[in-house]
Amino acid sequence: MALLIKNGRIITATDDYTADVYCEGETITKIAPSIDSGSIAKGTEVIDAAGKYVFPGFIDPHVHIHLPFMGTCAKDDHASGSRAALAGGTTSFIEMICPGPKDEPLDAFNEWKSKAEGQAACDFSFHMSVVRFDESAREQFRQIVTIEGIPSFKVFLAYKGALDLSDEDLFGMLSLAKELGVIVTAHCENAEAIDAMQKRLLAEGKTGPEWHEPSRPISVEADGVHHLATMAGLTGAHIYTVHTSCEPAVRTALDARLRGVNVWIESVMPHLVLDKSAAERPNFEGAKYVMSPPLRGRRHQDVLWAGLAGRAISTIATDHAPFDFKGQKDMGKGAFTKIPNGIPSIQDRPALVYTHGVRPGRIDLHTFVDACSTQAARIFGMYPRKGDIRVGADADLVVWDPDFEGTLSKETSLSAVDYNAYEGWKVNGRASAVTVRGEVQAKEGKFVGTTGRGRLITREPTHF
Amino acid sequence: MALLIKNGRIITATDDYTADVYCEGETITKIAPSIDSGSIAKGTEVIDAAGKYVFPGFIDPHVHIHLPFMGTCAKDDHASGSRAALAGGTTSFIEMICPGPKDEPLDAFNEWKSKAEGQAACDFSFHMSVVRFDESAREQFRQIVTIEGIPSFKVFLAYKGALDLSDEDLFGMLSLAKELGVIVTAHCENAEAIDAMQKRLLAEGKTGPEWHEPSRPISVEADGVHHLATMAGLTGAHIYTVHTSCEPAVRTALDARLRGVNVWIESVMPHLVLDKSAAERPNFEGAKYVMSPPLRGRRHQDVLWAGLAGRAISTIATDHAPFDFKGQKDMGKGAFTKIPNGIPSIQDRPALVYTHGVRPGRIDLHTFVDACSTQAARIFGMYPRKGDIRVGADADLVVWDPDFEGTLSKETSLSAVDYNAYEGWKVNGRASAVTVRGEVQAKEGKFVGTTGRGRLITREPTHF
Amino acid sequence: MALLIKNGRIITATDDYTADVYCEGETITKIAPSIDSGSIAKGTEVIDAAGKYVFPGFIDPHVHIHLPFMGTCAKDDHASGSRAALAGGTTSFIEMICPGPKDEPLDAFNEWKSKAEGQAACDFSFHMSVVRFDESAREQFRQIVTIEGIPSFKVFLAYKGALDLSDEDLFGMLSLAKELGVIVTAHCENAEAIDAMQKRLLAEGKTGPEWHEPSRPISVEADGVHHLATMAGLTGAHIYTVHTSCEPAVRTALDARLRGVNVWIESVMPHLVLDKSAAERPNFEGAKYVMSPPLRGRRHQDVLWAGLAGRAISTIATDHAPFDFKGQKDMGKGAFTKIPNGIPSIQDRPALVYTHGVRPGRIDLHTFVDACSTQAARIFGMYPRKGDIRVGADADLVVWDPDFEGTLSKETSLSAVDYNAYEGWKVNGRASAVTVRGEVQAKEGKFVGTTGRGRLITREPTHF
Amino acid sequence: MALLIKNGRIITATDDYTADVYCEGETITKIAPSIDSGSIAKGTEVIDAAGKYVFPGFIDPHVHIHLPFMGTCAKDDHASGSRAALAGGTTSFIEMICPGPKDEPLDAFNEWKSKAEGQAACDFSFHMSVVRFDESAREQFRQIVTIEGIPSFKVFLAYKGALDLSDEDLFGMLSLAKELGVIVTAHCENAEAIDAMQKRLLAEGKTGPEWHEPSRPISVEADGVHHLATMAGLTGAHIYTVHTSCEPAVRTALDARLRGVNVWIESVMPHLVLDKSAAERPNFEGAKYVMSPPLRGRRHQDVLWAGLAGRAISTIATDHAPFDFKGQKDMGKGAFTKIPNGIPSIQDRPALVYTHGVRPGRIDLHTFVDACSTQAARIFGMYPRKGDIRVGADADLVVWDPDFEGTLSKETSLSAVDYNAYEGWKVNGRASAVTVRGEVQAKEGKFVGTTGRGRLITREPTHF
Repeated sequence: MALLIKNGRIITATDDYTADVYCEGETITKIAPSIDSGSIAKGTEVIDAAGKYVFPGFIDPHVHIHLPFMGTCAKDDHASGSRAALAGGTTSFIEMICPGPKDEPLDAFNEWKSKAEGQAACDFSFHMSVVRFDESAREQFRQIVTIEGIPSFKVFLAYKGALDLSDEDLFGMLSLAKELGVIVTAHCENAEAIDAMQKRLLAEGKTGPEWHEPSRPISVEADGVHHLATMAGLTGAHIYTVHTSCEPAVRTALDARLRGVNVWIESVMPHLVLDKSAAERPNFEGAKYVMSPPLRGRRHQDVLWAGLAGRAISTIATDHAPFDFKGQKDMGKGAFTKIPNGIPSIQDRPALVYTHGVRPGRIDLHTFVDACSTQAARIFGMYPRKGDIRVGADADLVVWDPDFEGTLSKETSLSAVDYNAYEGWKVNGRASAVTVRGEVQAKEGKFVGTTGRGRLITREPTHF
Repeated sequence: MALLIKNGRIITATDDYTADVYCEGETITKIAPSIDSGSIAKGTEVIDAAGKYVFPGFIDPHVHIHLPFMGTCAKDDHASGSRAALAGGTTSFIEMICPGPKDEPLDAFNEWKSKAEGQAACDFSFHMSVVRFDESAREQFRQIVTIEGIPSFKVFLAYKGALDLSDEDLFGMLSLAKELGVIVTAHCENAEAIDAMQKRLLAEGKTGPEWHEPSRPISVEADGVHHLATMAGLTGAHIYTVHTSCEPAVRTALDARLRGVNVWIESVMPHLVLDKSAAERPNFEGAKYVMSPPLRGRRHQDVLWAGLAGRAISTIATDHAPFDFKGQKDMGKGAFTKIPNGIPSIQDRPALVYTHGVRPGRIDLHTFVDACSTQAARIFGMYPRKGDIRVGADADLVVWDPDFEGTLSKETSLSAVDYNAYEGWKVNGRASAVTVRGEVQAKEGKFVGTTGRGRLITREPTHF
Repeated sequence: MALLIKNGRIITATDDYTADVYCEGETITKIAPSIDSGSIAKGTEVIDAAGKYVFPGFIDPHVHIHLPFMGTCAKDDHASGSRAALAGGTTSFIEMICPGPKDEPLDAFNEWKSKAEGQAACDFSFHMSVVRFDESAREQFRQIVTIEGIPSFKVFLAYKGALDLSDEDLFGMLSLAKELGVIVTAHCENAEAIDAMQKRLLAEGKTGPEWHEPSRPISVEADGVHHLATMAGLTGAHIYTVHTSCEPAVRTALDARLRGVNVWIESVMPHLVLDKSAAERPNFEGAKYVMSPPLRGRRHQDVLWAGLAGRAISTIATDHAPFDFKGQKDMGKGAFTKIPNGIPSIQDRPALVYTHGVRPGRIDLHTFVDACSTQAARIFGMYPRKGDIRVGADADLVVWDPDFEGTLSKETSLSAVDYNAYEGWKVNGRASAVTVRGEVQAKEGKFVGTTGRGRLITREPTHF
Repeated sequence: MALLIKNGRIITATDDYTADVYCEGETITKIAPSIDSGSIAKGTEVIDAAGKYVFPGFIDPHVHIHLPFMGTCAKDDHASGSRAALAGGTTSFIEMICPGPKDEPLDAFNEWKSKAEGQAACDFSFHMSVVRFDESAREQFRQIVTIEGIPSFKVFLAYKGALDLSDEDLFGMLSLAKELGVIVTAHCENAEAIDAMQKRLLAEGKTGPEWHEPSRPISVEADGVHHLATMAGLTGAHIYTVHTSCEPAVRTALDARLRGVNVWIESVMPHLVLDKSAAERPNFEGAKYVMSPPLRGRRHQDVLWAGLAGRAISTIATDHAPFDFKGQKDMGKGAFTKIPNGIPSIQDRPALVYTHGVRPGRIDLHTFVDACSTQAARIFGMYPRKGDIRVGADADLVVWDPDFEGTLSKETSLSAVDYNAYEGWKVNGRASAVTVRGEVQAKEGKFVGTTGRGRLITREPTHF
């Protein structure tokens, strides 16, 4: 079925103009000042976007859906997670494949793929976590990159003894990434330092969620970034620091860039609008706000927004990791180290960025689109198929109503999680209509599409 | 007359694909995998770009052509200057209007415009220098911005008593710029410090061109950037530091960006490939390499290239300022302070960036186009009319032969200046064909077009 | 009369030992583990310092006593100011001579000297403000340095049109300072920027004391430091940034030091323990907390303390400037720009540093002595006559009771000012006995000495 | 036997005056303007120091003497090493105890002590290397600190698989150090990164000494400092970065200091006067200049000198590691990784610092003494017994002839090594007389004392 979006103000990372957009056979086939209904296929669905923005579908380059953790599993499946994404305006996401340290990489890839295929309502791709780097694993990574079309790795400097690599393996992995043209996304916190700090704090009886941040202060994150950037400089590998939360981490990455290291910086939604006082809320409520790196002091938000405005920070992702407050977060009642990490944001990201970034003038509309869509597509090899509005691109589009005023809530949330970290927050703007490859999947914050329609986005390596 | 460029590999700031480009009536009207000659106007000129790149026409956002100086005048006129630009692949430039401190801004604008119109073979625009800021001047600036379509200012922190503003006027001018949405390009060196240093060096008998750099060391430039960025932070004005030459200046600007200052950074050709040893050449030869800020130590080149690669530095301009060695540069034989400043580079910039930036892998093709064309268009309000290859854009195109090998020389230089600062340098790549609004103006390094065809590019303010 | 201090724990910038100290004829003549009363002059006053510290007399290198301002005058005279100093443990201070822009420097010097001599109960010296730099002024400065023994200048980058120098004069003054071996103390805020900001805020109706800080944000101070350090680098002059209040200013100075600039950093008491919320107190109470640079955000305190601990910051002064709340501060009720600047701290500095620095372990005892006494003596050419406990040094001593617990208050304050900025603050530690050149001038927070006994400390230039 | 040094200009870290110094029974017993020979013991040796400086004996806080390495052993023993030290003016040194990863710490301590006792002609102490951190080792470290009087550790972040600790052990070790008041000296280069780089370079056939620096570039050292400083910040431990060689490492340490980390910085002689071009000398000559961190680019020297002048860098040591060129350095002919590391400098340090630091005005005489003597004493708990000239201190004195002009050479070198890295360098200044605890041990560059007279300096922990 064809689709015509009329009279919208089209906003891309670079452009701003009013036109009609016609989509047929999954892609955009025509953009013109005025497309006459006579010239298009019969039965074409027509959306009037007058007074509205038309954005490329938002892309979330950092989510967790299938996420086994300490014997339990995160609450969303790809059905609920992708519906939540779509309701907010996100039409593609990249999920982290998180195998255990002994698992076979290819098995993990196949497991994660099988969880998504036939379930996800939006398109999806993966970052392949590297938590083992023996010869067999290396061969499997080559295959995952070149045969399966997954040219991005994830590495954890954090999570001691579980997911972190030795420095020798880190160097080897980065060298392989350079060889294959693969970008390495990285969680940059020093694992051992955190482990020792956690033990010390727990030993001192400091067990509540408010001690999560002190167990991994900003210096630990900056140290992780410094270390990764050093290794990237030596190997030539391209790196991407996920969920960069604080000024010293950002500065460290930018310093590295000025000495020639190829580093991109990701921010995530919670760090942009929440601060560490949230994790200090009484009655264990703070546990809802436990993620890693932790929420920081307020002033770091200014640095992140300024970094986005000046394009020093490339992307805004969510690090969506959907654990219930009851039954999951509360596993950490006796010890903050046992609180499953994550602040679910997959649905609310676009409205939060629009409300707290665009409306107060911290970033402009182009930066909004760039950070929430285009850069993710470019950095991760999906551009221009995704992340832009142009003839030939996938017809992933968001018609955005800038005048909508609403309230975020668990009630309107499509994620399976039992709380909303932004409960009661007022927002401006909403996705009136959201299309994936030419089909409307969400309308006015509600999912109206087909679960399981999402497709794996395979990609080519571009980071040589 | 129409034009068809066939089989080229089209490279823009974001895209890389092979297609045919058809131009008619000054603009690009069609881009398609294959445009059949049957479908186009008769008599269409066809260029075969197989094996070649097609770039958007290069833009030089910082040149001097009409440049009165100490009773003499720079050697190029708009005819020679624009022909040189076109021969190298530059299809538009922005010239600095440089009135004296007592001149009326509107008179100056009209003088500069009259020198260009009917003379320039490529398109052109202006930055309006603000060297006076009384009420009458302010009114004229408003008019120049809003009526004449020149929404960019130039300010000199350097050049004491001639061109510099008081801090009070600087604050006022930046406030006006913010109000009007005008970007302020700025020469950031501290005027008084340099003046005092010059006097001291000359008093010590240090009169040769090799003393030019010590009279204005890197700290002085960093101080200028720091000061301008501070004032911009207070007023909200958008600034653009021209010819940023050294690591501390770049870092200072980036620091400001992280605290929310809207600052863009320009590099210029000479600082990317020449170092201060050039100004130490014997027999007054060093005078050919005197410009301000001066050529620096070699290590700063690495920082500039890395800044470009990571997009911290937006543009590569030339600061083309065409003074003869004989009769002009040698006015400074007794005192380096009297050497007219400038290292003419308007023709050679694209080949130098391609040879020293793209070929050794310091920057990629997209960054080349972005820094030499697209960013200038975007920052200075000419995008997407200029700086991109798309339907509707001006048909300013460069067909680039990557396999060409040649040698830079005064002999092949179309500028009127009597020397070439890069004499004898080997280069790779050349503009095989260069079009301005659909007409071929240069071929294989030679001007083949129409002098005087160039048009003033008027622009809208975008920096609110 | 002679004096013997027995059994004290002697703490200097470098040493920590228990001994008896014997003073005769104004200087320390003997230090020994045990000085037998048989071996000393009859009638020697004996102080038992068992369980107490003995410090060198504290030195405050930055005070204002005689301070004409907008037709009024600061409240302390040298009698009240010096008695307050002594009660707290400060035995010498250096006052800023602040002439108007047309005054003759020598006249100003003589005026300030005459106000102090015969009045001050503690010793004193001066920094000579340079607010004019014509030839006649230059000659007078030479005389003040070489004949009057005042080898330290003060320069204001702030206070537009009143006290600031042009950059040309700044360069000349720094060159003269280098020639004479004079250190230049400097108030580093950009005058014009502040002036413009003040006008803008007042025009917006923002007139209360809470707008003082926004009128001169941290970037403005950092800009002043950057500028002064640049000029010092060019001239070789030694500089000393007074009342450095914030992280960027400190960092800027340290960066300059690493590139070879001779810069020392001063902090002042209010910035170490107060933050900008104080100036937001209702009912114009905030005016008590208006000084320049203004009180900053809390996090800057941590940087200042860390800077002291690591000796990056050399001194803790007060910038004592004693204006009454009633009748003086309230001149600024309609406009924060008319609030006389200053937070009187001359008496309370030692107890505040001891309470907030030493007790919580932010700095150790040696750093306390170094920052509050020894460094001022060393930097300003009074060492080892002042600032140390050694045979031959002036017998300026503080016997400090670490166990004292008290409360700061206007009631116990000897300054003439009608409020105490630290009213009600609990402190630990007090000067049990304070001697100036061998005579006890204060005991247990009370002045017990002779007004007018203070002497001008003449000094030799040491900053070549 | 007693000793009287007459008429010398006494220079300490803080003082500069002319006096006579009388020493009896190993310590300084009197300092006075003029000490009459009638008032002193008969047979007192009298040295006329008129026209000369008298410095406290220099201390070298970082040397290797007993140094087993790849089956061979460094060439000096404590006899030759200490004689060389004394000839240059160094009266005490601190040697690194370097056990293998399986050795018992106490055994190592005893081994090193036994090598020094009865052999060394100057006084000595040790830093205890921590290359194991199991429970038994921990117990032994406690004993070494508290019973043996060795309150300083050494840790290697470099030297993979041999000497480096895991991060877990590093955290534990720093926590122990904090508990015991021990300062941790650290070699800050990332072991794994270097190992991987070495393998890669060798695999590429890059085997010569000129590849030593590229195998461990400045980013790797900065990364080591960043990491150690992060861990020190978490544990509160006091750290001391040995042989800090480059600007980013220095900056990283200073940044840490401003956020409250207790970090001291050491420079070493070779980095101050040699640059990496030395390691590029032909005929394997470059091997003489292989040490770690490697010699760097010339510009880093300026930063180190500026850091010393501003006291950001505390000490100048040597990292003396005496391997022969023939038979030892040439073990690395096939692979730079097998070149024993070290540039012997134990004898020449004072003359080199005087010539290249004091004479050209980079540092003053006080900084010379502070960096080469006093700070080492203060930081490592030997002050004021060592490192100062005062009554009661050990009579370790250097009478320095500033007018001496000489040439450094293997010929005049007392070290057992078969080359002098500074062969043929002209120097100014020489130790005319050198005393250890009151006995003249060297005169005019020649050893005249008693081998084996040196004594172990036991120390108390001071870094709580």
